[in-house]
Amino acid sequence: MQPMVDQPEIGLLGIAVTPSSRGYAALAQAKAEPGNINGVQLSPTVQATRSNQERAHGGRAVPYLELFDAATADVIVDSRQSEHGGVFWKKRNRVMIVRTPQFEPIEGFRWIELADLMALLHDDDLVHADTRAVLACAPWTLPDEFVTAGARLPSLARTLAGSTTCDLRPLARWLSAQRTRRSSVSISVALPGLVGWRRTTDALKRDDGTGFEVVAVSVEAAGREVDGWCQPMIRPVDLGVVGLAVSDRDGQLNLLMQACPEPGLVDDVELGPTIQIAGGDPPRSVAEAELLALLLDSPAEAVLFDAVLSDEGGRFLHSRCRHVVALIDGRDAPEGFRWCPVSEVVGMLVHSHQVNMQARSALVCLLGAVVGEPLSKPK
Amino acid sequence: MQPMVDQPEIGLLGIAVTPSSRGYAALAQAKAEPGNINGVQLSPTVQATRSNQERAHGGRAVPYLELFDAATADVIVDSRQSEHGGVFWKKRNRVMIVRTPQFEPIEGFRWIELADLMALLHDDDLVHADTRAVLACAPWTLPDEFVTAGARLPSLARTLAGSTTCDLRPLARWLSAQRTRRSSVSISVALPGLVGWRRTTDALKRDDGTGFEVVAVSVEAAGREVDGWCQPMIRPVDLGVVGLAVSDRDGQLNLLMQACPEPGLVDDVELGPTIQIAGGDPPRSVAEAELLALLLDSPAEAVLFDAVLSDEGGRFLHSRCRHVVALIDGRDAPEGFRWCPVSEVVGMLVHSHQVNMQARSALVCLLGAVVGEPLSKPK
Repeated sequence: MQPMVDQPEIGLLGIAVTPSSRGYAALAQAKAEPGNINGVQLSPTVQATRSNQERAHGGRAVPYLELFDAATADVIVDSRQSEHGGVFWKKRNRVMIVRTPQFEPIEGFRWIELADLMALLHDDDLVHADTRAVLACAPWTLPDEFVTAGARLPSLARTLAGSTTCDLRPLARWLSAQRTRRSSVSISVALPGLVGWRRTTDALKRDDGTGFEVVAVSVEAAGREVDGWCQPMIRPVDLGVVGLAVSDRDGQLNLLMQACPEPGLVDDVELGPTIQIAGGDPPRSVAEAELLALLLDSPAEAVLFDAVLSDEGGRFLHSRCRHVVALIDGRDAPEGFRWCPVSEVVGMLVHSHQVNMQARSALVCLLGAVVGEPLSKPK
Repeated sequence: MQPMVDQPEIGLLGIAVTPSSRGYAALAQAKAEPGNINGVQLSPTVQATRSNQERAHGGRAVPYLELFDAATADVIVDSRQSEHGGVFWKKRNRVMIVRTPQFEPIEGFRWIELADLMALLHDDDLVHADTRAVLACAPWTLPDEFVTAGARLPSLARTLAGSTTCDLRPLARWLSAQRTRRSSVSISVALPGLVGWRRTTDALKRDDGTGFEVVAVSVEAAGREVDGWCQPMIRPVDLGVVGLAVSDRDGQLNLLMQACPEPGLVDDVELGPTIQIAGGDPPRSVAEAELLALLLDSPAEAVLFDAVLSDEGGRFLHSRCRHVVALIDGRDAPEGFRWCPVSEVVGMLVHSHQVNMQARSALVCLLGAVVGEPLSKPK
């Protein structure tokens, strides 16, 4: 039993991109959110609930919302994707990437070259969770110059080239079989009736101190739709881990994906990264524990990416996951895991509710590892 | 406000096929269901709720369930699909097609050539709704001899040849945009509090007499898992219509699909057929009413398929839809509709919850129209 966030509205997570001399630049917002550990993060162009969009709270208009009108925009990506199914109840977001001519942004927004944004992923807690989740949905048929610039994995570009035409049926069949095996039935119970949880003066928390707490915060904000509000937030009791094992096999870049069951997913199970350990939780299986040890003990030359990145600060308070991407070789996938060409994972992202939020975060870190050397953080 | 069927278990709808001299034969069950208007229909090999599968009612084992073990079977199709989102609440079924060696079936089951099964679609109320819904998910890269035998639309085979490699991104983007436009929020209310409905001695029905009624039936059955039971059933007050407009364009076979919102779909909207009018309901839009008139007034030579087919008799009582497939040309898609190459619709069926039950029924009627001339019903 656990509390979950019920937010049935479809929110919009959108990034506007514009052609630039180095490929594309993205319009990022330097946005402060109450749960951010370090103030502002590089957030999507628009990140808005339907209530925000319709100004249900009587607040200010959402800047740049008009760029994401599917009828008039040059739409690159438009799909519906899940959000952390461990704490959100059947939540779905609309994820969009649109192409626009370049323009001078208003205060609080700026164009950032995608290559630089990828490089900034190596900085802890800087690139917002939703920015990562949206960019992962891009059609990653990278321009040659973009890949070769920092390419550590030539097989990445080669494998991605097939992402629009690869046959997804074997992977979809496998995921269906995993879904059926793990499908569960949830019922809602009254909050005071949560067995194993207690309400203290400042939190709803588990008796055993694991997992997360629900806390209340009072927010005063500048530059937001409204100037202040109170809200509950999710605060994990520890750092989580998002890990991705990658492997060059037969000239193809493969990712070790996990079929992750989460109670809040609309179809029970989605493709997750190799390791998905929410802050305060133990590994979910012996296989995951073994793979975690393997990834964290990787020799330095095998580690492609290692940084601590935040969860979305609008609902999560100081929730952070260490993101590790590393090369491992010569290992069969355990039960519930599957080696997938990166093209297939990108292909599945075209369709809704197949690839979870943590996998999208891991995927963009992989791309960051390959196309962007750290700009500011010595390794 | 309306009553809906809440059946959160994932059921299995599976058809076993075996290679035959004419391509493939399917193992059909002659199954009686309480809602069937004419006794038995040609049903899938296995059609079982999880409770059936696990014998929760203490009943007999489900025959041939063991053929559908994904770990050992030669799996052709394994996906999760919705069921009538107008009356089922977020219901999902596992849809499987497996290939087996031929064997002598037990009483009540027989192998039927797929070409014959397609031809039998032209008979009213004979091929079960779930048989249609499962067969539509097959990879319709038809063997040459199968297509040329009765081919009225050579563009069908040509278009289907691209179904595993076509780029589904434009269609997926369009569907996402439609989903967001139509997304709704539903809340559950107590059954006695349904405004506009009343409970009589023998039914829960709408005050205005439209739509459907919920009735109770007492069933005595032979050859089923248990010998008798009582259950509520959905009884529409009138015949429905499932219509599909098809068009040869640039040598490709295109289908006019509709983005159909249904309250019980897990992601609000799926691709539906051109016309989807549940029994007792009016057309949902002016565009649908106009297209309905156009389809029903088609000249005889343009009508590819016209038969009355039943909904699933386990939950629906005497629920039937006229299925019409006709060629129409030179007409732009109205708002909310889209011309899609048949390859794209088949490609979307690889992924879960994209193509609704009525569209699957219409799709298999199209295939029936093309590959099978009526076996028994004079036209």
